[in-house]
Amino acid sequence: MRDRTDDLVRLADLLVGFGANLQPGQIVGVNAYYDMADAARAVARAAYSRGARYVDVFWWDLLVKRARLELADADSLEFVPPWMGERLRWLSNEHAARVFLTGTDSTVFDGIDPSRMGRDLLPYLKEVPEIVNERTTNWTIGPCPNPRWAERVHPELPPDEALDKLWDEIVYVCRLDADDPVEAWRERMRAIVASAERLTERHFDAIHLRGPGTDLTVGLLASHRWLGADFTTVDGLTHYPNLPTEEIFTTPDPERVDGHVSATMPLEVYGSFMSGIRIEFEGGRATKVDAEEGGEALRSIVAKEGADRLGELALVDGEGRIGPLGTVFYETLLDENAASHIALGNAYTFPLEDEADRERANRSPVHVDFMIGSPEVDVDGLTRDGERVPVLRGGAWQI
Amino acid sequence: MRDRTDDLVRLADLLVGFGANLQPGQIVGVNAYYDMADAARAVARAAYSRGARYVDVFWWDLLVKRARLELADADSLEFVPPWMGERLRWLSNEHAARVFLTGTDSTVFDGIDPSRMGRDLLPYLKEVPEIVNERTTNWTIGPCPNPRWAERVHPELPPDEALDKLWDEIVYVCRLDADDPVEAWRERMRAIVASAERLTERHFDAIHLRGPGTDLTVGLLASHRWLGADFTTVDGLTHYPNLPTEEIFTTPDPERVDGHVSATMPLEVYGSFMSGIRIEFEGGRATKVDAEEGGEALRSIVAKEGADRLGELALVDGEGRIGPLGTVFYETLLDENAASHIALGNAYTFPLEDEADRERANRSPVHVDFMIGSPEVDVDGLTRDGERVPVLRGGAWQI
Repeated sequence: MRDRTDDLVRLADLLVGFGANLQPGQIVGVNAYYDMADAARAVARAAYSRGARYVDVFWWDLLVKRARLELADADSLEFVPPWMGERLRWLSNEHAARVFLTGTDSTVFDGIDPSRMGRDLLPYLKEVPEIVNERTTNWTIGPCPNPRWAERVHPELPPDEALDKLWDEIVYVCRLDADDPVEAWRERMRAIVASAERLTERHFDAIHLRGPGTDLTVGLLASHRWLGADFTTVDGLTHYPNLPTEEIFTTPDPERVDGHVSATMPLEVYGSFMSGIRIEFEGGRATKVDAEEGGEALRSIVAKEGADRLGELALVDGEGRIGPLGTVFYETLLDENAASHIALGNAYTFPLEDEADRERANRSPVHVDFMIGSPEVDVDGLTRDGERVPVLRGGAWQI
Repeated sequence: MRDRTDDLVRLADLLVGFGANLQPGQIVGVNAYYDMADAARAVARAAYSRGARYVDVFWWDLLVKRARLELADADSLEFVPPWMGERLRWLSNEHAARVFLTGTDSTVFDGIDPSRMGRDLLPYLKEVPEIVNERTTNWTIGPCPNPRWAERVHPELPPDEALDKLWDEIVYVCRLDADDPVEAWRERMRAIVASAERLTERHFDAIHLRGPGTDLTVGLLASHRWLGADFTTVDGLTHYPNLPTEEIFTTPDPERVDGHVSATMPLEVYGSFMSGIRIEFEGGRATKVDAEEGGEALRSIVAKEGADRLGELALVDGEGRIGPLGTVFYETLLDENAASHIALGNAYTFPLEDEADRERANRSPVHVDFMIGSPEVDVDGLTRDGERVPVLRGGAWQI
């Protein structure tokens, strides 16, 4: 196992300085899973070095959660301690910076009843999408290599080699191999934002995706814009909610989604593994939800309020660094940036210009991304007068 | 290193079932330092097995705190995130059970400016003594062996042997070696409570301690009672705030403390190591505070509101299991139960029967125990009419 101290310092500084764009004097909320102590400490050091007023780490341990899932009364599983939401409200009121570290091994939940899994979504909190829409905090989510996650991603390798390979991949997809990772990201973001602007200018009425197991039309609202994942807070701070990020996205019309779609990659949702997902939509609503693995957990999530309608449509081109690796990371942050995707559940409202459209955007306590794109999936734009315009072919932009 | 799985299960169950006396349906607040994952998970399993509604673990990492102490602006060091106190208020409002795990290695703070250490008391919160006085939660503090702490306590041994020895000591002082540890504790508590009752019946006006470096008179309030550390909540639940516990204690008159006192053991306070403490009192107030090591940190704590007056006087006899080991655990929970002690700062009010006395009890945001007893320290009771009554000689009760 190679020494990764330098990589950790570079990763932490990229997340704090560029991703979250921490300003001196800000409070910093950090979310870290238990296995991520080294990274959380590196983030704390990076943040205090850049003048953070206080670094507040929220630790989450999957084995304590497993004890609950195994042993607690089923009716108690949806309980959420009030301080967790109050903490997020505090971070929002303080206009804090926020750094989330991801990369877990959900096999720690093997053997747990999926219907119980679906009732306990912690550490996810309903306040997260609320404060994202308020745009009060400058935040980022970044990957954090650790032994358990590495073993999940590369089970064919000895543990040390698995962690080495995962670290190499994270260094690559986070562009930490560049002399100046921040400048490398600025360049990639310029290309992503240019694609988003070209697509916005077309004012498509719908997007049509067609490929193996997929034939789906997603209606768009009249005032929709396509955005790259560079956000701006109400205070005018630019930040990058996902590092790495390769997508452009918009908020669809939750009442005009029709057809069927097959996920092109497995995924993990709130700790449950799901593969071979196939969903049928009619009038915007998911009417049939199947999966080869994890179907019951997925259906128990879709049964939540608003979780049977779409909250996001995102397109990823073939020029990103994640897709070509061919690695399934079992981690939405990375996997969603490998391929075009849709999300069930809560919508961001800021891609919509008109207040009336914003009110039509989907609302839900959950937000579940799943990948439906691949080089084999053709993406077309449909205009209001019925014209069909190629958008992506073999992962390459056509507009 | 011996496998300690069984010891961990027995320790967790003793803390949850006997120490905190968890009732089915209760919420459980757990405090755990980062190195204590196995114990925290064992406590969670014990609690859920006994019907806990939710186990809320508050993790605390000393290395994240170190990053703050090294790098943050000095004026920010007294900042406390509001959610931490709100969480305690919530646990109080819910009449929750609480389990604290202790046992840390404060040498992680070596080299930090003591005046900075004294400004950041986290994870200590001012709400802790408040909710203790409200008697709304049934709680316990228990020791949690871990490698770093073991190395601190037994630096002369190889790490594995140090941990083994610390585990053996914890098993012994927690009476986990008994066939029925709960029954062993009930028996010891009966003896402790009987001593407390005999002392209460004497209605002493003051206690006088005299030994090497110590000649201290501590005034008592008229309605004082001596208590063993079996507490009862407002709901009538008996719980044991300290496991192990060997002390009887009362709340002194904060305005009648005179003389000088020398600590008989080193201690750690809010992460700072202190040894050779010598304090002079006049009219209740600490007028001179010296220490061979850690004096600056101690003085910065004593400078806080109310921290220059006494909040507690506790007597420990020679029959407890901790003192005879001769081990310094660098952990107040254990060390204070090795010897008679006093505490600077906040007082418990419940040992006082009259409301007027309760209002005279000392108030402070801090509470610092330090050990002043040994078999060489004679303890006398002074009656209101000047009689002197031997109380402890060579660690044996005289009353």
